[in-house]
Amino acid sequence: MGITKLDEIGARAKQAARQLARCGTAEKNAALQAIAAALREDIPAILAANEQDIAQGREMGLGDALIDRLLLTPARIEAIAADVEHVATLPDPVGRVFDERVLPNGLRVHRRRVPLGVVGVIYEARPNVTVDVAALCLKAGNAAILRGGKETLRSNTALTESLRRALERSGMPLDAMQTIADPDRALVLELLRLDQYVDMIIPRGGAGLHQFCREHATVPVITGGIGVCHIYVDASADLEKAIPIIYNAKVQRPTVCNALDTLLVHRHIAPRLLPPLAAKLAEARVELRADPEALPLLGEGAGERVVPASETDWGQEFLALILAVRIVAGLDEALDHIARYSSGHSDGILTEDQAHAARFLDEVDSAVVYVNASTRFTDGAQLGLGAEVAISTQKLHARGPMALEELTTYKWIVVGDGHVRS
Amino acid sequence: MGITKLDEIGARAKQAARQLARCGTAEKNAALQAIAAALREDIPAILAANEQDIAQGREMGLGDALIDRLLLTPARIEAIAADVEHVATLPDPVGRVFDERVLPNGLRVHRRRVPLGVVGVIYEARPNVTVDVAALCLKAGNAAILRGGKETLRSNTALTESLRRALERSGMPLDAMQTIADPDRALVLELLRLDQYVDMIIPRGGAGLHQFCREHATVPVITGGIGVCHIYVDASADLEKAIPIIYNAKVQRPTVCNALDTLLVHRHIAPRLLPPLAAKLAEARVELRADPEALPLLGEGAGERVVPASETDWGQEFLALILAVRIVAGLDEALDHIARYSSGHSDGILTEDQAHAARFLDEVDSAVVYVNASTRFTDGAQLGLGAEVAISTQKLHARGPMALEELTTYKWIVVGDGHVRS
Repeated sequence: MGITKLDEIGARAKQAARQLARCGTAEKNAALQAIAAALREDIPAILAANEQDIAQGREMGLGDALIDRLLLTPARIEAIAADVEHVATLPDPVGRVFDERVLPNGLRVHRRRVPLGVVGVIYEARPNVTVDVAALCLKAGNAAILRGGKETLRSNTALTESLRRALERSGMPLDAMQTIADPDRALVLELLRLDQYVDMIIPRGGAGLHQFCREHATVPVITGGIGVCHIYVDASADLEKAIPIIYNAKVQRPTVCNALDTLLVHRHIAPRLLPPLAAKLAEARVELRADPEALPLLGEGAGERVVPASETDWGQEFLALILAVRIVAGLDEALDHIARYSSGHSDGILTEDQAHAARFLDEVDSAVVYVNASTRFTDGAQLGLGAEVAISTQKLHARGPMALEELTTYKWIVVGDGHVRS
Repeated sequence: MGITKLDEIGARAKQAARQLARCGTAEKNAALQAIAAALREDIPAILAANEQDIAQGREMGLGDALIDRLLLTPARIEAIAADVEHVATLPDPVGRVFDERVLPNGLRVHRRRVPLGVVGVIYEARPNVTVDVAALCLKAGNAAILRGGKETLRSNTALTESLRRALERSGMPLDAMQTIADPDRALVLELLRLDQYVDMIIPRGGAGLHQFCREHATVPVITGGIGVCHIYVDASADLEKAIPIIYNAKVQRPTVCNALDTLLVHRHIAPRLLPPLAAKLAEARVELRADPEALPLLGEGAGERVVPASETDWGQEFLALILAVRIVAGLDEALDHIARYSSGHSDGILTEDQAHAARFLDEVDSAVVYVNASTRFTDGAQLGLGAEVAISTQKLHARGPMALEELTTYKWIVVGDGHVRS
């Protein structure tokens, strides 16, 4: 155990959560507005801290892409503040009543949405996560314990100080937002086992982080983020829709979890689809890894961009401009391939056949299943939730984009008038 | 690893779950009816297996109470079969659509309830759990992997054989119900880490089992079952209601998790409540462990039944005819005591003051909170869910009684017409 006393952080968070649970929507929204204002006021201090992180990052030899992810600018801080203001405008899930009924014995029963309590978030690189997550947790009435990457320790500390000043001005409990500002890696392990105080852990990072959390946590963990995404092009697909959808799903932002990884193509449509698709994807210099039947249709021999697929290409999340392509005999073979290789994140069918669309939606067991749309819509804001804290690929509690409601739980409320069980 | 190949059991369960997810309500209900019929037909074989378990239990020196929990009789098997028929009559949560909407860009989005997939259940002693859990899992479209106690290995095997014969007759996948019929304890650990195939683990047993599962599982675990339950008697409580409620909560079935453990009494009502309450509880020979202020009011010196409480009595689940009693200055002190010592299962207030009732319901963070009713109602059937598979005291996924809906998850369904993300 490091110098940081994680059990003290946990106890303070739990105490703050008890206070937060009693705050009304107006109070929480006022605090969010105060946070946005504080962030804008504190731009000089936040940028100064970020400059130190960036300088250290360059010394450590971090690449330009990673440096760019760490970098804060006045415009980026303004965007973060605007996101916080947006969270203030979203509906508050806390207090919603459901399953209300009067039982035959006269007991009045309902369930009411309440905050989860204390949420732990373990994340890498981008400092904006600090504020995004803290704002969503606050709106849902939860205390947050944040553990960012060591590369942005100073930026995260400066952001958290700004947030806490805003909480203080708003009369909210300061310990609603705490950052573990100690790079000791043992603290991550401790946080994962702090089940006395922490109700949920959200990892935000790569497969390794998720696996580590699942392996070591005694606190319930939301695993997700890993997307091995498939699109199956049915024989009846409309090429006018199919080529733009595939291009969008692969090219628009290839480094994220909802980008397309494997294209499955019905044998009958392959000769019409694959040559123009290959030409289109060549514009973005997408590398195609194809099975033997697809290779000639994709322009085999077009240099390094069209190569034979190996077994490890199926079920791989590329996070890059690479697409695996396989010809299938029909819907059944596509469903079998997806059942075997999908990570359960986002999978779609392109078809004009309603029966095939229905079977695909019924039988593919993924968080989000699509008909005739790009997999890139798997995102809280895109699906109408207003924001998101993570994307879950497990099945408990929440599946797919997690927003404010998924940061709550419920309690049962039972009101009697002297009722006893017989 | 034992002779039993758990990964094969897992792979078969996952395959069966894929088939089950395609079954309609009528098919599932027909299979449940077939199970009830098979259980009745197989009474002789099940009783023969149970006799061997009982004989072995007596050899091992198990006490009469435990032997009674293991024992099956024709009447008990009939009751189990009737419970399965009851599950067939409950509404099927699978396929329910919610959060349906059309987004501004024309994408049609909804969420649909689907089975979880594969549910692992680890339980002790009572063989009826085998059938209860299997029936609820089947109704919700899940495959079940069951691991009962070694004391009922033969009974559980006979019951499972009966269930599987019924599945076969109904044309359902046999591997929807599998029992780990190997007493090797290492298999429990393996089951907890079978995250490739298993979507949820439900432990049914004591605190030790729950702790073990939480500690070792990589599969999401529903923890619960431990109930340190409180009732706070407010100054305004109606004694005509209060004494019967307290008596019921403590005495009606003291060995279960929703029985009362600690009574908190407002100082102003204590002189009127405690003497008649002590007399009533004495009828059932309840042992009272009281703080110094309550002791004289409870008839201190009434032999072994009224004794001073020690610190370890607060926060203890007695599972016996023992009640801890403490005088408090008012609602705030009661709320603080509950926040500190409750296990978050079931806590109640007895009051005629609406404002106090509302504060108690708002501020007590437990799965089920009560006003003027016995804590013994925390039960799926009692709260109108028709049945229950477990009671959760964690906050993720499900809280309180878990029934059919809590054995499902949802998927997002997104239907476009060539939609791409801009």
